[in-house]
Amino acid sequence: MSDYSRLYKRINYQFSDEALLTVALSHRSRGASNYERLEFLGDGLLNFVIAEALFHRHPELDEGALSRLRASLVRGTTLAEIAREIQLGEYLLMGSGEFKSGGFDRDSVLADVVESVLGAAFVESGFEAAKSIILALFDQRISSLPAAASLKDAKTRLQELLQGKGHSRPDYDIIKTAGEAHCLSFTVQCVVNAYDLVTTAEASSRRKAEQMAAEIAIDSIKTLESSAP
Amino acid sequence: MSDYSRLYKRINYQFSDEALLTVALSHRSRGASNYERLEFLGDGLLNFVIAEALFHRHPELDEGALSRLRASLVRGTTLAEIAREIQLGEYLLMGSGEFKSGGFDRDSVLADVVESVLGAAFVESGFEAAKSIILALFDQRISSLPAAASLKDAKTRLQELLQGKGHSRPDYDIIKTAGEAHCLSFTVQCVVNAYDLVTTAEASSRRKAEQMAAEIAIDSIKTLESSAP
Repeated sequence: MSDYSRLYKRINYQFSDEALLTVALSHRSRGASNYERLEFLGDGLLNFVIAEALFHRHPELDEGALSRLRASLVRGTTLAEIAREIQLGEYLLMGSGEFKSGGFDRDSVLADVVESVLGAAFVESGFEAAKSIILALFDQRISSLPAAASLKDAKTRLQELLQGKGHSRPDYDIIKTAGEAHCLSFTVQCVVNAYDLVTTAEASSRRKAEQMAAEIAIDSIKTLESSAP
Repeated sequence: MSDYSRLYKRINYQFSDEALLTVALSHRSRGASNYERLEFLGDGLLNFVIAEALFHRHPELDEGALSRLRASLVRGTTLAEIAREIQLGEYLLMGSGEFKSGGFDRDSVLADVVESVLGAAFVESGFEAAKSIILALFDQRISSLPAAASLKDAKTRLQELLQGKGHSRPDYDIIKTAGEAHCLSFTVQCVVNAYDLVTTAEASSRRKAEQMAAEIAIDSIKTLESSAP
């Protein structure tokens, strides 16, 4: 049995049910009783608690800005940083193959385990207790968020990416509108001439579909550039 | 001032702060004080509460199945059905242009307002109160979920879609692996010969990247087929 006392101090929470904590720390390589279900729960919990914190602290921001700020806080690299700060990797339980390949220090695994441990705390002690742990872990990061304006939406980022390389702007066209008035769906095409690239996305509003098509275009351009000879 | 008493009965919750409820019911076409921030909050709340309900009621399911069940419960069409059951559309506040174009009965708007009203209840009365409203609204649907096995993952759905049309299986190839051992990213390509289609996706695991590439392929095939002459 591990000695979890240092971990408890770092997260300012003591588990009563150490068997539950053990599941939260067990990678899939250990077998069927692993952290993945708790991670699913913890992911939803974390998203919501961060949403609430941003909602209350930033009454001046619209939902697009709130959403981008949240994404910057809950993404894998941020969670992995937090895992390293509380030295969660020491407690990870992995199959020996995964351990040898350095899995205990992999960002994606560390990020998953932050979520599963939070999920486990929620299962054991409920919403307010789990929320306190999250707010303490994220306090510095929530207070020192970049100006929301600097987190640009996908259409803006795509345009700046293209301009930076001396290319022309992308074009957006609605190629399909489906459904009746009460249930519309828009399929939008984003055309990036400089890369012979056409991406499509479908959403319930033109604005959302354009943002999604722009996001796919950015990913595609990055993939193309990184695989170019 | 609207008479909200029937709405309160249908959701089994009475707002003390009717000004807050009014914001939750106000479409963007009404101006700056609209439901979008509350919708952001309510969306996170709803996702988490449904995740918790499924986690507890289905100890036999893995996180992939839980995730697909949740998606089927919180998608726009389901939320719009719930909005119609509680006749939420009657209380919607829209600019006259949106109203005339039938916006009060549009699925996407109704789905948004379900979330914003839930977000408002949470702001007013906290997590447990908002959770009770959600569980009552979703009770039937959570109890009568399809067998999780019938909610297939994207790779399976793509394969079945192709087989059904007599085409061969898609191929998946890793086209790029980036990062160090502690922070890997996989770019996967899904090749669908029958449609001359190549989609790519990047994720922190090969499995996730393949699922994402398959999902994009399914969307692309549907777009191609619906726009074919």
